[in-house]
Order: sequence, then C-alpha cells, then structure tokens
Amino acid sequence: MAERRQLKLGAMLLGVGRGTSTWRHPDAIADASVNVDVYRKWVEKAEEGKLDFVFIADGLYIEEKSIPHTLNRFEPLTLLSAMASVSKRIGLVGTLSTTYSDPFTAARQLASLDMLSGGRAGWNVVTSAIDGAALNFGKGGQPQAHPDHGLRYRIAEEFLRVARGLWDSWEDDAFLRDKASGVFFDPAKLHALHHRGDFFSVKGPLNIARSPQGHPVVFQAGSSDAGRAYAAREADAVFTGIEHETLDEAVAFYADVKGRAAALGRNPDDLLVFPAIAPIIGSTTEEAERRYAEVAGLVSVEEALDNLSRYYGHHDFTQYPLDEPFPELGDVGRNGYRSMIERFKRNARERGLTLRQTALQVATPRDAFAIGTPEQVADRIQERFEARGADGFVAGPVLPDGLERFVDEVVPILQQRGLFRQEYESDTLRGNLGLPVPLNRYAKAGAQAGK
Amino acid sequence: MAERRQLKLGAMLLGVGRGTSTWRHPDAIADASVNVDVYRKWVEKAEEGKLDFVFIADGLYIEEKSIPHTLNRFEPLTLLSAMASVSKRIGLVGTLSTTYSDPFTAARQLASLDMLSGGRAGWNVVTSAIDGAALNFGKGGQPQAHPDHGLRYRIAEEFLRVARGLWDSWEDDAFLRDKASGVFFDPAKLHALHHRGDFFSVKGPLNIARSPQGHPVVFQAGSSDAGRAYAAREADAVFTGIEHETLDEAVAFYADVKGRAAALGRNPDDLLVFPAIAPIIGSTTEEAERRYAEVAGLVSVEEALDNLSRYYGHHDFTQYPLDEPFPELGDVGRNGYRSMIERFKRNARERGLTLRQTALQVATPRDAFAIGTPEQVADRIQERFEARGADGFVAGPVLPDGLERFVDEVVPILQQRGLFRQEYESDTLRGNLGLPVPLNRYAKAGAQAGK
Repeated sequence: MAERRQLKLGAMLLGVGRGTSTWRHPDAIADASVNVDVYRKWVEKAEEGKLDFVFIADGLYIEEKSIPHTLNRFEPLTLLSAMASVSKRIGLVGTLSTTYSDPFTAARQLASLDMLSGGRAGWNVVTSAIDGAALNFGKGGQPQAHPDHGLRYRIAEEFLRVARGLWDSWEDDAFLRDKASGVFFDPAKLHALHHRGDFFSVKGPLNIARSPQGHPVVFQAGSSDAGRAYAAREADAVFTGIEHETLDEAVAFYADVKGRAAALGRNPDDLLVFPAIAPIIGSTTEEAERRYAEVAGLVSVEEALDNLSRYYGHHDFTQYPLDEPFPELGDVGRNGYRSMIERFKRNARERGLTLRQTALQVATPRDAFAIGTPEQVADRIQERFEARGADGFVAGPVLPDGLERFVDEVVPILQQRGLFRQEYESDTLRGNLGLPVPLNRYAKAGAQAGK
Repeated sequence: MAERRQLKLGAMLLGVGRGTSTWRHPDAIADASVNVDVYRKWVEKAEEGKLDFVFIADGLYIEEKSIPHTLNRFEPLTLLSAMASVSKRIGLVGTLSTTYSDPFTAARQLASLDMLSGGRAGWNVVTSAIDGAALNFGKGGQPQAHPDHGLRYRIAEEFLRVARGLWDSWEDDAFLRDKASGVFFDPAKLHALHHRGDFFSVKGPLNIARSPQGHPVVFQAGSSDAGRAYAAREADAVFTGIEHETLDEAVAFYADVKGRAAALGRNPDDLLVFPAIAPIIGSTTEEAERRYAEVAGLVSVEEALDNLSRYYGHHDFTQYPLDEPFPELGDVGRNGYRSMIERFKRNARERGLTLRQTALQVATPRDAFAIGTPEQVADRIQERFEARGADGFVAGPVLPDGLERFVDEVVPILQQRGLFRQEYESDTLRGNLGLPVPLNRYAKAGAQAGK
C-alpha cells in the first residue's frame, strides 16, 4: 500500500443470514447456507464487482436455540475450496479456530487452499468465543474445559507462530524437478520447524510447498485488548465487526491498532483495518429504512431474548422486565463475546434502551452506517476511508438481494470516484490487498547477503 | 447390489506417482501433485469413463527421503472439494487419519464435502502407519507417542462411531424451513450425541444437516487382522493394496472379509472389496513390459534402499549385502506397515529375491495383474470379478498417460462385455456403488413402526 488511494472491499457470505429470522424473508432462499449453487452465484457476483475477497464466518457449537444459519452450514475450508474452482481472482477467506484445531492440519489445509486457488486464501483466526465448543472436542473420554479468554489468545499466538513456521518449511525455489539429474528438490531449502512451545510440539516440515502467497492472508476478528494486541503483532488484516459506530470511534480504533503495529516495528500499512458493514440499499432513504423494518419485523421478542442469551453464556433474560432499562449483569458472559457485550451495555446505557429494544436490535443489527441510498452509503464509506477510520469494508448483506445491490449500485459509485478498482491488479489476494509476500525466514539471510 | 453383474471402478490420482522416480519420466508433469489443472483433467477423464470414484491417498509426515509425491501435495479434503465443482457424478474419496484428526471436524468436513458434491463423498479411514506423524501433532509442548497398531484401531473404531453418530444429528427431514409459521426445523428431529468413550468426548449435534448419502461412503485400507475386523464391522468398502497377487489369494481375502461381515449380521453385499491395481497398458505385451522397464529403470539402488527403509521405521538397509537373500529382520518395523512388510518378506522368500531385487520392486511395484494389452488386463479383471476375488478395482496409474489409457482402452472392453456401466445409475456415490443409504439411528424406530 505505497499509495493509499483506493479502498478494499470484501463480501461476507452468510447463507440464510445473520439474524434469527432473515430466512423468512419472501425472497430468501431458505436453504442457502447449504446450497452450493447459491454460494457459487454469490462468489461470481462478488468477483464481477472486483471485490477483494469473500469471507466465511464459522462456529463450532450449536444447540436448539442457535441462529438458523449456524445450525446447518458448509464448513469454511471445504466450501472455499469448492469456490476456488469457480472463480479466478477473488480472495477466499475462511474462519478457523486456533482453540479447536491442530496447527499442522490447519496450516496444511490453508496452504492447500492457497495452492488450489493460485494464491487467494485468507484465514480469519478466531479463538472460539462460545464455550460449548469445548464439549465437541473432548479428548480421553472427558470434556475439556473451554480455555479462558487470555489463555485462548496465548494458544492462538503460538498456533499462528507454528503455522507460519510450517508455511516456511520449503523455500520458494526449493523444488527443482530436474528430470535429467534426478534432483526433485534442493535439500538445503527444506527446513523442519522443531517447534516445542507451551501448547504444541510440531516437528515439521509441512508436506506442501510454500504457497503462492507465502503465507495466506491472516485476518483477526477480536476487538478486545488481547485481540488488538494479537492483531498488531500477528495479523495482516483486522476485521472489526459492526461496532465502531461513530466516525470518531472508528478513527480511534484504526489509530490504535496501526499504532500498536508501528510500536512493534511493523509497517502499519501492512495491517489493514476492515470494519464490517451490513448494507441495506434502497432507491430512497425511506425505502432502505422500510426494507430494514421488513426484516426486523420477522423476529419475535421471544426469539430475540433467546438470541441475546447466546452472548451471555445462556443467561436467562426472561427474568427481567421487558420494557425497563437493560439490566445490570455484572460478570455474566465475561468469558465469551467480551467486546460485543460491552457494546450492548454501552449502547443501551447511552441510548436509554430497554431490554426489549436491545434484544430486537441485537437480533437484527441495525447498521445505520450502511442503510440508505447507494450514494449515501458510498458517501459514508468514502468519508470513513479518507478519515482513516478504515482501509476497507467487509459487507455482509442483510437482505437476499443485498450482495447484488451492493455490487450493482454502490461499487460503481466508488469506482467512478476513483476509490475502488475497475479491474483486479493481481491474481493473488495479497497482490490485490497491496500486502507484501512474507519472506521465508530461512531465505532471509541469503536474500540479504545477496543484496 | 441386488444383482452382482457389474463391477465398480475407481481411479487413484497420484500426482507425480507412487514411485521414487516416476516424475522423471519424459511425459510426466513434474509438479502434478500440486497442479490443480492436472487434477481437474484427471477427474474429467475419470468421469468420462463413468468411473465410480477418484481416490486420494495421504500421509502426515515427511522427511528428506520421502517419495516425491508425498513431499508436496494437496491436502485431500480441500482438493476433493475443489474437484466437486468441476464434476457432476463421480465419487470423491479422500484419506483422513483417525489417529491425528478430531472426529467433530472430520465428520463435519466430510459431510460438507458430501453436501458440496451432491452426495459423492467417500472417506478412506486410515490410522497413520508412519510413527513420525506423532511428531507433528504433539500437544502441551511435548511430542506424543505414536499409538501402537492395536490402540490405533481401537481409536479408529471409536472415532468412526462418533462420526456416524454426528452424521445422524439431524434426521433427513428435520429442516422444514416454513416461512409462514417461522419453523426452521423440527426440534424433535435434532439429536445431540452425548458421546463419552475411551478416547473422545463429543456432545454434538453436528452443525450441518444429514448429507445426501446419510453417511459418506467409508473405505478402509488396512489388510492386517485388526484392519479386516474393522472393515467387516464398520466399512462400506475395503481397499486392499496390490497384495493379493494370485487369484486364490484374492478369493480367500474376499471370502474372509465378506464372511466376517456376515458373521456380524451384516449383508456381505454391503461391504465391497476393491483391490488396487497399477495398470501399465501397451498395444502388445512386450510394449507394456517395455514401458514398465522404462519406469523401473529411472530408480537407482540407493534410492530404492532409502525407500524400502521407510516401511521399516528407517532401518538402515545399507548394512546388508545387496546381492544375497533378503535379510532376516525380526521385529523391525512391526508397528507400522505390518501387512506390507509381511508381503515383502514372503515375496522375497517365495521367489528367492535378493535385497537389491526386493528394493527395486518395492520402489517400482510391478503389478503383473495389470501389465499388458487392454484385452489382457480386461480379461484378468473379469476373471477376478467373476471368481469373487473383487467387487471392483481401484486403478492407480503408473505412467503419466496411465489413467487416459485405462479409460480409453480398458474401460470400453469392460463395457462391451456388459461388466461395466455405460452411464451413471445415480448422482450419488452410494447410488453408483449399489450401497444403501444408512438409516438415521434416531429415525429407525419411527420408520419401523410405520411399516
């Protein structure tokens, strides 16, 4: 990102949607979360719009009350591998938990996706906020305890260090494949990692060559202090959720993570900040608002309370009066979606919201930033980008036609203003994002010596 | 398989090949193991031939002396997911280790592949013979010990039980998606597994619906006693390796595993036996033999000894005289490729082979069964099928044009003889293999009551 003139855009593909009831919309495809033709159409649409990447969220635990999309959806790495075959230039970013995966297999599958897609893989590193996930990954016949927030980040840090080490197993030019001499590879360019840390012991090497991007692009999604520190040290991109609602807040967050990266000796341009937005486009402001109300109206209060309780370790909200101020909850839910529940609380306090209002807003997040006409949404995107509140945005559509309208109506305005590309600059996600290919740690000495 | 009139065929896709030096063949594509266009072409060719499935082998540990194909290859589940998008009817069978995977993630990724492919996923269950794999999956900062052969099979059995339980989390008709009533699914048709066994604790439910095949087709590859017992209890198909070299041996193996299945109350037709073959086709017998010699001649004795040592836990074979009878090795290598090293030993003794001869034959396996003219190979396939020595075969080409010649020259003969399909019978792998869709364990009572 030598010149910061253009913003970056991703599309979050959400199957039947992020809400509890978006699948009930008349235009919704009610099996979208497991319909490969729907995902294919979306990926093609996003690529038509020259978007940098599609983004697949994930989770590892469900129960009866879980949101419909999470109950029955494709697994991200298999889905993105299938999508690699039906696209050419768009990035493929998938969520994978460092708390409930093996670094060897994770590094390998991500490298394989990067290879299958010609350098378009991205990894959204999460630590799994829902403690129920532990119940699906018990070893030795006993359920494991879900690690607490701080421990999850320590694991995540070591996990990523191992993955990056494995991705450097082979130097970029290790494979000679010289039929005449019979030399398949240069043994001097093969490196076993020999990692022994607090959580993992991984000898290596990885059984796949260094992929086109060197390392897949690493996204990090947490916004807690531990999450920010992690992103500043380890990530290529921060994905922030719809939570920095004012321009000032967004600018402060942006400055904070860029500053942390710089303080660690990194080039802050190599850490991109991507707030999520949830666009609802209308031909007029009123139409856009009406379309939001249409979706929000599909949710009952009972469903909304159930949904809210998920963020608080299933705390029972039916015990509180619905139309009084949002209750004081003390430490309830502190080991999960920490930054989200902080936001719910602050939001309720600042706006004087009741429990009913909070629950309904959480069930159908109202992203005022991205509700409006194409021009209004483009204006806000431009303002936030130019004010250094974001390097780009990840648009997670709310309505069934959300991606289509964003690509057909908002993107062209951004292109006309010179804020977004007319054509892909590169075949790789790193190339399009303007991120450098990490040097192989083992090649560095030689590369520097050769200067 | 109500009527056993037609045989089944799979193609093993092996990148740069199974041998140490096949990549040096003039026609070999030397990066085939990580070349998605090559795999796409192969899958298309196999589908053109109406083959039942493609089959992807795997391994989890490499070192400098490993076979080229294993050093740098796609990971099976990501590769097969990419292939799902470029094929319509052919089955997609991938290898995944029960010793070094999590049952929740494995079940989920396989179900996701089954969903992405419309019911074409298969899983080759292996327990990881190479003990080095343990070094890549150490937890808590310490390398774990590689479990011994018997323990690996106990883990595998529980692992598959968990996976099958997770695949039944949702009854087939659980998702109602009724927009009018707002009922997304029927809670009575959602089942948490609550598994607590010796090795795993998995609550469930799985976060993906029951896939089109109910359970992906389960292949099992071991031929040891524990492997056979496992297959008879748990598998839909046994994949046997190139080892039952005489018709009598093949028939005895076939009768043994079918008998074991029947003794456990299974319909023996629901367990298919697939010997692997390594075809080398020529217009004449002499041409086929010349083509084998061409490949075998690419390997040096040093490479062949290195390769042999892999099966024996890196036992050093350079300490023995090359041209004397194959050495007595006692218990060397007993915890790995047990049935393979038994075969090497027996083969050497029965044929009076030296160490040099054995090493060279292991480096470039000479599958006499499948070397010859198209008619000769078709004759042997027919004989073995009709004698009940196999329900089908998995053809792993040796030469770069191996799959093409098998599909273009051998398959048509089998079709003309009425031994192989002219068109797919089904859209699913189970459908084409004639295997039943397993009933959901929770739906059984109701289904039986309804009779």
